[in-house]
Amino acid sequence: MTLDDRLARVALSQLGEPGDLTMAAFIAELGAVDLFERLREGSGPDGMSQTVAARLNGMDPARDLEQAAGRGIRYVIPSDSEWPHDLDALDAANSLDHVGRAPIGLWVRGPARLDQLPRPVAMVGSRSGSAYGCDVALEMGRALADAGCCIVSGAAFGIDVHSHRGALAGGGQTVAVLACGVDRAYPASHRPLLDHLAHEGAIVSELAPGCAPMRQRFLSRNRVIAALATGTVVVEAAARSGAISTANWTTRLNRPLMAVPGPVTEATSQGTHELIRCGAATLVTSAADVLELVGPAGLFLTAAPRGRERSRDALSHTERQVVDALPVGIAARSRAIARTAGLGYDEVETTLLDLEAKGMAQREDEGWRLAARALD
Amino acid sequence: MTLDDRLARVALSQLGEPGDLTMAAFIAELGAVDLFERLREGSGPDGMSQTVAARLNGMDPARDLEQAAGRGIRYVIPSDSEWPHDLDALDAANSLDHVGRAPIGLWVRGPARLDQLPRPVAMVGSRSGSAYGCDVALEMGRALADAGCCIVSGAAFGIDVHSHRGALAGGGQTVAVLACGVDRAYPASHRPLLDHLAHEGAIVSELAPGCAPMRQRFLSRNRVIAALATGTVVVEAAARSGAISTANWTTRLNRPLMAVPGPVTEATSQGTHELIRCGAATLVTSAADVLELVGPAGLFLTAAPRGRERSRDALSHTERQVVDALPVGIAARSRAIARTAGLGYDEVETTLLDLEAKGMAQREDEGWRLAARALD
Repeated sequence: MTLDDRLARVALSQLGEPGDLTMAAFIAELGAVDLFERLREGSGPDGMSQTVAARLNGMDPARDLEQAAGRGIRYVIPSDSEWPHDLDALDAANSLDHVGRAPIGLWVRGPARLDQLPRPVAMVGSRSGSAYGCDVALEMGRALADAGCCIVSGAAFGIDVHSHRGALAGGGQTVAVLACGVDRAYPASHRPLLDHLAHEGAIVSELAPGCAPMRQRFLSRNRVIAALATGTVVVEAAARSGAISTANWTTRLNRPLMAVPGPVTEATSQGTHELIRCGAATLVTSAADVLELVGPAGLFLTAAPRGRERSRDALSHTERQVVDALPVGIAARSRAIARTAGLGYDEVETTLLDLEAKGMAQREDEGWRLAARALD
Repeated sequence: MTLDDRLARVALSQLGEPGDLTMAAFIAELGAVDLFERLREGSGPDGMSQTVAARLNGMDPARDLEQAAGRGIRYVIPSDSEWPHDLDALDAANSLDHVGRAPIGLWVRGPARLDQLPRPVAMVGSRSGSAYGCDVALEMGRALADAGCCIVSGAAFGIDVHSHRGALAGGGQTVAVLACGVDRAYPASHRPLLDHLAHEGAIVSELAPGCAPMRQRFLSRNRVIAALATGTVVVEAAARSGAISTANWTTRLNRPLMAVPGPVTEATSQGTHELIRCGAATLVTSAADVLELVGPAGLFLTAAPRGRERSRDALSHTERQVVDALPVGIAARSRAIARTAGLGYDEVETTLLDLEAKGMAQREDEGWRLAARALD
């Protein structure tokens, strides 16, 4: 069989687990074609030939590619125009949990072109998200999609699925990165959602079609979620949630890491609170906060939260001075109020009548005091 | 009347509002005695004589002190050994809302000595605190008091009163700083609490006994709360809460500012979220987090939240490799698992039996898969 770069990568991706550092190092040194030829001839680099021998039997990457294509699945490699070069940043990042480097290639099912995802934002969190966390994921996914962002997540229970659903509700694109083959549904109950994504967005995996989800594959998958996005929001995560590994990858990639707070009385937000507390993540409360951090500088500035306008805001400078001098509790004579305000007696008398008309000052037998309304 | 520094300060404190920058500047320049003598003779500095003339009539500081003493109220001035020198930092801080500088003196009612408050922490927040915020204030106040901290707050409705009550429940000391005279109860319904503090802790104010609470006095009062404490926790605050001014004073004093997050779906935490988001405050979730920031370095280190221990934590290295290679969904033959794990077939067979005994691996007709328990 004549071997091109694509076929060699299809083969190599099945000889090691995703994020295998040794494999990545030898591909960088020798090229995928040369490395695979050597392994096939039993003359591969020390430390690789032995472990891959069993997997080499019956390998046929051309057949794998053809079968995948028949099911609407393509294999995107770094030399393709569709390759999302955001992933290349993984080659410069330190590894985590013995996993790292850019993927050898990505299996993709769905119409979204990976190099053209609009402003991709990762949204991740606990599989066992609370009602609060799932509500926030749904609403934030919707609002980000509405603002033109593509939501990248992992199609898991809880926060992931609510983020995808929010994006769909907002009429936006959404991409699921899986820890198994893109032809498989994990969890099985998310098959309808995944089929929908395969028609409207994309399902992505480093693993060849048919591969099963395994624990280590979730961890290596998380680096792809972080690297496909311009920033990551951890919507809700308990202390040891897998979402923390996606957060750590985001930090290693020097991309904005954001986390949503929640009640401190619930363990479900312990992980996000720790990320914010130690300075790893910026606190975000809404899609607007996220856009400010991941959008082009200056395009999505948020207004500082102002609270509602208050009756006091509409007063003149003199009126405010008098309001500030009015007692909150027991009434005072206007002369005492003038003294406190540092204003003339006549001026204060007139102003008090104006303030009474505006409902800000209240007249009592003993003098004047602040009306309840002015305390708002 | 012969005038000493204390009497001069009692008089001056009644000639201007708390935090009056002009007054503070002239006291620093001339001394309290000289300034008051000049004002009394009508030869005071420009810009002061006119505004104080009306207030000078009938002033008798010696009588004021004596009457106060009869009601268990003392006046503490900077030259007293009881003066809390933490307040002096206000002289170096920039002013805010045209208010600033250390108080001229403090009226105090209660047995707590201001210079000996044990590790004072300010807890502040919205008068209209939510049930969540009030619960957090109560529990945090209790736990901080239990750890030996004195809680400083403002005796207002909502977060303030729950912080004081928490401190009392924790058997600790607590100090209320008021925006009116220490003989007055504002709000009136907090009179029993204030009377309790007057017996167990202290009630403090810059304002002479009898003075009424006014809007501007709450703002100047907030600087005293911030300056009496080694750090401030904003427990819950909406966007325009008065607690934000206490937060700003804490920042100006270069002391630790902390804020408790809450649900992003509620407006009641908008102010605390903004303080954290912009980097002004550190997120805290518990008394332990607060102690780490305000306690002596190294004394109150918090453990990173770890979540509960997991079944996986107790496995050997080989067992973990096999667990990591087990499919989550559909079972796989042990030969395939060995290939994924990069281990010998015999070793994997033995390990799978051990893992089955531990409830981590599940045997199926088609091979092995991860037991549900191992996903915890």
